[in-house]
Amino acid sequence: MKAVVYDGPRTVSVKEVPDARIERPTDALVRITTTNICGSDLHMYDGRTDLQPGTVLGHENMGEVVEVGEGVDVVKVGDMVCLPFNVSCGVCANCNQGLTAFCLVANPAPGMAGAAYGYADMGPYAGGQAELLRVPWADFNCLVLPPDARDMSRQRDYVMLSDIFPTGWHATELACVQPGDNVAVYGAGPVGLLAAYSAIIKGANKVMVVDRHPDRLRLAEQIGAIPIDDSKMSPVDQILEQTGGMGADRGCEAVGHQAHDPSGQEKSALTLNNLVHSVRFGGTIGVVGVYFPKDPGSPDPLQKQGKAPFDYGMFWFKGQSMGTGQCNVKNYNRQLMNLIANHKAEPSFLVSHELKLDQAPEGYRNFDARNDGWTKVLLHPDGGR
Amino acid sequence: MKAVVYDGPRTVSVKEVPDARIERPTDALVRITTTNICGSDLHMYDGRTDLQPGTVLGHENMGEVVEVGEGVDVVKVGDMVCLPFNVSCGVCANCNQGLTAFCLVANPAPGMAGAAYGYADMGPYAGGQAELLRVPWADFNCLVLPPDARDMSRQRDYVMLSDIFPTGWHATELACVQPGDNVAVYGAGPVGLLAAYSAIIKGANKVMVVDRHPDRLRLAEQIGAIPIDDSKMSPVDQILEQTGGMGADRGCEAVGHQAHDPSGQEKSALTLNNLVHSVRFGGTIGVVGVYFPKDPGSPDPLQKQGKAPFDYGMFWFKGQSMGTGQCNVKNYNRQLMNLIANHKAEPSFLVSHELKLDQAPEGYRNFDARNDGWTKVLLHPDGGR
Amino acid sequence: MKAVVYDGPRTVSVKEVPDARIERPTDALVRITTTNICGSDLHMYDGRTDLQPGTVLGHENMGEVVEVGEGVDVVKVGDMVCLPFNVSCGVCANCNQGLTAFCLVANPAPGMAGAAYGYADMGPYAGGQAELLRVPWADFNCLVLPPDARDMSRQRDYVMLSDIFPTGWHATELACVQPGDNVAVYGAGPVGLLAAYSAIIKGANKVMVVDRHPDRLRLAEQIGAIPIDDSKMSPVDQILEQTGGMGADRGCEAVGHQAHDPSGQEKSALTLNNLVHSVRFGGTIGVVGVYFPKDPGSPDPLQKQGKAPFDYGMFWFKGQSMGTGQCNVKNYNRQLMNLIANHKAEPSFLVSHELKLDQAPEGYRNFDARNDGWTKVLLHPDGGR
Amino acid sequence: MKAVVYDGPRTVSVKEVPDARIERPTDALVRITTTNICGSDLHMYDGRTDLQPGTVLGHENMGEVVEVGEGVDVVKVGDMVCLPFNVSCGVCANCNQGLTAFCLVANPAPGMAGAAYGYADMGPYAGGQAELLRVPWADFNCLVLPPDARDMSRQRDYVMLSDIFPTGWHATELACVQPGDNVAVYGAGPVGLLAAYSAIIKGANKVMVVDRHPDRLRLAEQIGAIPIDDSKMSPVDQILEQTGGMGADRGCEAVGHQAHDPSGQEKSALTLNNLVHSVRFGGTIGVVGVYFPKDPGSPDPLQKQGKAPFDYGMFWFKGQSMGTGQCNVKNYNRQLMNLIANHKAEPSFLVSHELKLDQAPEGYRNFDARNDGWTKVLLHPDGGR
Repeated sequence: MKAVVYDGPRTVSVKEVPDARIERPTDALVRITTTNICGSDLHMYDGRTDLQPGTVLGHENMGEVVEVGEGVDVVKVGDMVCLPFNVSCGVCANCNQGLTAFCLVANPAPGMAGAAYGYADMGPYAGGQAELLRVPWADFNCLVLPPDARDMSRQRDYVMLSDIFPTGWHATELACVQPGDNVAVYGAGPVGLLAAYSAIIKGANKVMVVDRHPDRLRLAEQIGAIPIDDSKMSPVDQILEQTGGMGADRGCEAVGHQAHDPSGQEKSALTLNNLVHSVRFGGTIGVVGVYFPKDPGSPDPLQKQGKAPFDYGMFWFKGQSMGTGQCNVKNYNRQLMNLIANHKAEPSFLVSHELKLDQAPEGYRNFDARNDGWTKVLLHPDGGR
Repeated sequence: MKAVVYDGPRTVSVKEVPDARIERPTDALVRITTTNICGSDLHMYDGRTDLQPGTVLGHENMGEVVEVGEGVDVVKVGDMVCLPFNVSCGVCANCNQGLTAFCLVANPAPGMAGAAYGYADMGPYAGGQAELLRVPWADFNCLVLPPDARDMSRQRDYVMLSDIFPTGWHATELACVQPGDNVAVYGAGPVGLLAAYSAIIKGANKVMVVDRHPDRLRLAEQIGAIPIDDSKMSPVDQILEQTGGMGADRGCEAVGHQAHDPSGQEKSALTLNNLVHSVRFGGTIGVVGVYFPKDPGSPDPLQKQGKAPFDYGMFWFKGQSMGTGQCNVKNYNRQLMNLIANHKAEPSFLVSHELKLDQAPEGYRNFDARNDGWTKVLLHPDGGR
Repeated sequence: MKAVVYDGPRTVSVKEVPDARIERPTDALVRITTTNICGSDLHMYDGRTDLQPGTVLGHENMGEVVEVGEGVDVVKVGDMVCLPFNVSCGVCANCNQGLTAFCLVANPAPGMAGAAYGYADMGPYAGGQAELLRVPWADFNCLVLPPDARDMSRQRDYVMLSDIFPTGWHATELACVQPGDNVAVYGAGPVGLLAAYSAIIKGANKVMVVDRHPDRLRLAEQIGAIPIDDSKMSPVDQILEQTGGMGADRGCEAVGHQAHDPSGQEKSALTLNNLVHSVRFGGTIGVVGVYFPKDPGSPDPLQKQGKAPFDYGMFWFKGQSMGTGQCNVKNYNRQLMNLIANHKAEPSFLVSHELKLDQAPEGYRNFDARNDGWTKVLLHPDGGR
Repeated sequence: MKAVVYDGPRTVSVKEVPDARIERPTDALVRITTTNICGSDLHMYDGRTDLQPGTVLGHENMGEVVEVGEGVDVVKVGDMVCLPFNVSCGVCANCNQGLTAFCLVANPAPGMAGAAYGYADMGPYAGGQAELLRVPWADFNCLVLPPDARDMSRQRDYVMLSDIFPTGWHATELACVQPGDNVAVYGAGPVGLLAAYSAIIKGANKVMVVDRHPDRLRLAEQIGAIPIDDSKMSPVDQILEQTGGMGADRGCEAVGHQAHDPSGQEKSALTLNNLVHSVRFGGTIGVVGVYFPKDPGSPDPLQKQGKAPFDYGMFWFKGQSMGTGQCNVKNYNRQLMNLIANHKAEPSFLVSHELKLDQAPEGYRNFDARNDGWTKVLLHPDGGR
C-alpha cells in the first residue's frame, strides 16, 4: 500500500510499504478515506523527536472498515468509522476511568501510559496517512459514523473527531468552562480555534482568542470570538479591559512549550504566565498545548530539563486551578459526532487544503512553514472519490 | 482589652489596646475563649511580610457572642461561635460561588481579593488573640456551635474549624480525594496532618505523609497514615514502592515556598516537583502550602519574582491537574462541626500546649523554633475558665 | 402607592396601599419599573390557594433602588436591580449550599423552607406589582444590572432574570443537560420555552418541545427547537422516532400537577409518566412544573393527598434520576445576566404584551384564559417611561 | 459440571449440566471458588419471574481463570478474579459512560438494556452457582484480585465485590452522600447494611438504619450505625428526632416494591414515601431496592401496572432529587477491592453461612424463609478447599 513515511528531519515521502493487516482477533482493518496533517506531526517532521525513519505518520484518521477479526462484535465491514488518535485497550484501570489517553496496556514501554498511531514514543502503531490502517481493540476504538459520512464533503467535519475537535473541547473541559463564562484562549492554531469554537457551543459569554497571525485572528472573529492581537499590545491588558478588570473566568492554552514572544524569542512559560495574569482569582485553566518532560534541543537550561519558570506564586495567590494533558478523545467524540450529524457543529471551517496522498510532502512543507492560508490540510488516499 | 500585638520581627507582646466594638449594624462582638497560633502567623512573626507593628494578631478564633448590631438576624448574644479566618461579605460574585477566601468586598485594597483577621495585606481587621473580636457580616461569618462548645475540653476540637481543619480538608478537595484513593501528603505540620486526617475520614486507602521530624511522623502514624521519612531516602521512591510503581492517585502539598531539602537548603519548587513524580498519570494535586507572588527576601532570583522552576513538562505529560489557594472555610466548617459534635472527628490530637494569653510570647518563640513537641499552641484569653 | 391586590378568586384590582418602606437596616427600597405576571400567579388568581385577599401580588420584579438601610454595604441608591422571586437570608445552612429557594430563615412558618414576594404560604413579603417594593437582605437579594438596564427595551430581557429564565435554566440543570444531548421538554409555556432555550444555549443537540397550542409550538420552532404536537399523536412515539428509538438523553417537565390529556382531562402524573417513557435508560429528568403536597380541590382521590400514580417501576428499571423543585435563582442569574448584557441571550422573545399597572386586571384575565397570543405580560408601574 | 438449577417455584437442585466453555475469542472460563445466594435470586426462586426452569442460577461469583480465548489480552490463566453481576460489552454508548448495568449489546432482547448471569430477562448467560462459568468480554468484565484472594478466608470479603458491596455503595452514590451527612437507610438486608457501611466509610455523620428484624438491627449497630426499629414507632419520627427536626441529608432505599408495613401488608410506595418525609428540603435519595415495570402477581391494581402511589407533591415541594437503578458494578469494584486488600473494608461481617454447592437447596430454603441468623449464604463449588 502507499503511505506517508518519515525519512528524517523535514523529509517525508509517499512510498509503497507492506499492507496493514489484522494481527489480533480484536483488530479491524480500515481503508482510509480522509487523514489530516496535525500540528503535532510537525514536532516529528522537524526532527525534535526520536521518531525512527521509516515510520508511517498520521493520527487523524477516518475511513471504511474492510475487515474485522473474529473477536470483533460490534463494528461491521462497511461501517464508516473515525478513529481517536489515542490507541486504548478499553479495559485497564485508566481506560475504565475515561483516561484513554493514558492507557496502561497499549504502550509496551515500561513506565509509560498512552499510545497513538504513527507517533514518537507512543507505541508500535503505524499511522494512517496511508491506504490502510490496522485498528487495535476495534470495538472500543472505532466510532461508527452516520450514513452521511460516506459523502466526502461531510468527511471534512467528521474527520475532526479524531483529534483536534475533541482536543479543543478538552481544553474547555480542563478549564471547566460553563455557560456565561468569559474565556481566554491563547493560540489560534487549529486546536485553539476549536477550543474557542467549543466554548461558544457551550454558551460561553465573551471568548477572546490571542494570536498574531492575521488569517487566524480572522477565523476567530468569523466564529464569533473576539480576536486579541498580541503583536502590539499586551494580551493580558486587553483581556483585563474586556472583562472590566476582573480577568477571564477560564483560560485555555493551545500553544505549548515552543511559545514565542512577539520578537520571536522562545519562552516556554510565556503563555502559562500570561494565562495566570489573564484569569481571575479562583479561575481555572486548561492546557492542551504540548510540553515535554525533557527537551534536549532547547537553548534554555531550565527547559532542557522540562522545567518552566512558572509564576507559581501568583497562580497560588489567586487560588487558580489547572488541568493538563492529551485529550481522552473517546470522552467527547460521540456527543460531538451528534452535533456534527445534526449540523450544530461544523469544525470544517478550518480546512484550507484537501490534497491527494501523493501531495503529502507539499502539505507538510507549507504547513510547517506556516505559509499564509495553510491552516489545515486534509489528505485523501483514495484521491477524494 | 488585652491583646497579642506584633512589635516587629520576632517580637510580640501582650498589651492593653482599645476594646473591639460594633462598628456596623451587621457586626457582632465576640468574647474570645480560645485562639490559636497558626503556622502562617510565623510568616509575619519572622518579619518576612509588611505587617505594621502594632497590629493585633490571630485568625483562628472562637468564643461567645456578647453583642450584635441591629442588622444581625440570626446570631444571638450568648451563642458560642467559631469564626473562619476569612472575613467575607457573603454577597459578592465570589462569595456567591463559594470563593469566600477571595471576597471582592471585604478587602479594600485595589485588585485584591480576600480578607482575614490580623493578617498582612488582608484588610483592616484586627486579630483575635485578644479578649474581644469584632466580626463583620456576623450572620454570614459566625458558625454557631452546639451547646457542648461551652466546655473548654471541647473547644480544643471546635477551634480547629477556624482554619487548619478546613484547610487540611481543602487540600483533599483540591486534590479530588475519593474513597479508595492512595494519597500522598507532603508536610506533617498541623495542616498536613489534618489533610491526612481528612483523607482518612473520606475513606482513602493508603495515606502517606512525608516529613522528617520524628514527632510529626509519629502523629501521622497515630492517626493511621503511613509515615514517609524523607531525610534518608527519596520520598518519591518510597511512595512508588507503596503503590506498586504506579504513584499515588492524589497528592497534597502542605509545605509552601519555604520547602527545604534534607540538607537544609531552601528550594521553592521542591515539594511541587516531588508531587509531580509521586502522583500517577491522570492524578490530581491540591496545594494549600503558601506561595507568594513576590518574595524579595529570598536568595533565589526566580523566587524573588514569585517564579518556581516547576517540572511542567512532566506535569503536562502525565496529564495531571492541580488546584491551589487559601481555603474557603465556610464550604466545609458546618459539616466538619457535625463530625466533631458527633465525635467522628477529633482534630485536637494535634494540640500540644494550652497557654494563657499572657504566655503568647513564649508560645510564639517555641513554635517558631519548631522546638520538639510544640506542635500546636492554643491561647485562652480568659485563662481557660 | 398603587399596587395590584388580590381580592378573591379571579379578581384583582389596582388600589392605593401604604407605601413599602425600609423596615430593617439590611433592607432596600426599590421603585419598580417592570414586573411580570407569572403562570404561578394564576394558581392564586384561580383561588386554588389560601392567599389572603388584600395581598399585593408579583414576584418577577426589577427596578431602581431609591433607599437603602444603614446595614447595606454594596447596593447603592440609583442602582438598577433585578430581584429573584425567592426571598433568602443568605446565611442559613440552605442558603450557604445554594438552596436559596429553601431558605430556613426568611419564612417564619414552622417546618417550612423558602419564601417569595406576594405568594401564598411563602412568608409575609408583599409583591412587586406595585410602585415600590421592600427587598429584605438587599445586598444578598439584589442583582445589580449593567447601565443599559435603564433602557426600557432592555428591561424586557433583564426582567426575565427574576424567575422564568433561571427557572427554565434550572430545569436543564436538574436534568443534567450536557452539550450534545437530545432533550425533551414537556410544556411550551414561558418556562418550558425558556428551558428549551436554555438547553439550546448549552449546546444541546435536538431539543424537542411538547405542547398542543399552535402559538407556543411556533415559538419553540422559532428558537430552533423541534415542536412536538401531542394533540394528535403520542409525544412519546414522536420523541422515540426523533432519537432512533433510544429516547431523549434528558427530560424537562414544565407543566405541573394540572397536566391535561388532549381530551382535557386532568391527570397529575401524565407528563411525569410520559417523560419516563420518552427518556432513555440511564437518562435524567428535571421537574420545575409545580406539584402540591396536598390539593384538596382536586377531583382525584390520590391527588387530594398529593400523591401521583407514578410509573415508578419503569423509572427504576431504566435507572433514571430526577431532580425537582423551585429554582434557586441566585445560582444562575448572574451568568444569565452576562449573556443578556452581551446579547447572547434574549429571553424577551416570549413577551407578547406590555401594559401599564392599571391594566393589570385585563392582563390577568387574558393570560388566565390562555387567550391566543397572550404568552407573557409585563407591567410597568411607571407607565413604561 | 455440577450446578444449581432452577426447577420451578421454590425448587432448586444441584445437577450435572454440560461444562461451561469458551465460545468467543474474548471469553474466559472461570473455575468458581465462591458464589453467593443473593436476595434477588429469591425473586426467581419464589416464582414471580418468568425464569425458565433448567436455568443455572448465580450472579455473585469469583474464582480462578482456567482458560482464555485468543482475543483476551490482559487476563491470564491462573488469575483470581471477581465478576460483576452485570455482563457488559465495554464498548457501547452506555458502557462508555459508565452505565454498564444498561449495556446495549450484551442483552439481545429488543428494547432492553443490561445483562446478568443466571437472571430472568437479563440475557442468555448461565449463572455461576456451578463449578465453571463462562465470562464474556473477559478483559472488561474480570476484576483481577490481589494474591491473597487465593486464601478462602479472604474470599469472604472479595466475593462481595460482585454485587452487594458495590450495590450498597451505589445507593450512597445515587444519594450523593458526602462526608458529614446524616443518612437514613431503609432496609437492613445485606444491601441496606452495606449501604450503611459505605456511608460510614465515606465519612457520613449519623447513619440511621430502619428495619424490624433484631438480628439485622444488631448488625447495623455493630458497624456503627444507629438502628431504627420501625415495628413500634414511626421511623420518620425517629429520624426527625435524630436530626433536630430537619430530616436526614440523604436517604437510601434497599427494600424494593415488596415493602411491608409492620402489620405485614405489602405497600409498594411505603419506603419511598417514608424517605420523602425522612429527608430534608433539598435532600437526595438513592434507590437500589428492586421495582418492576409490571408486576402481574401483585394484589394491588396500581402495582400490577408498575405504578406506585408516590408522595410526589411533597417530593417536589421539598425540592428533593432521586437516583435509581441497578448498580454499574465496574464503577466501584476496583476502589472497593483496594480498601479490602488494605483491610480498610471488611464486608464479610454479613456472612452467616458457608456451604458446599450440594447444600445450595438448604441455603435457598432458609434464606428465603428469612430464618433467624441466615443473613448471607456463600457456596463453595470446590468444597471450600
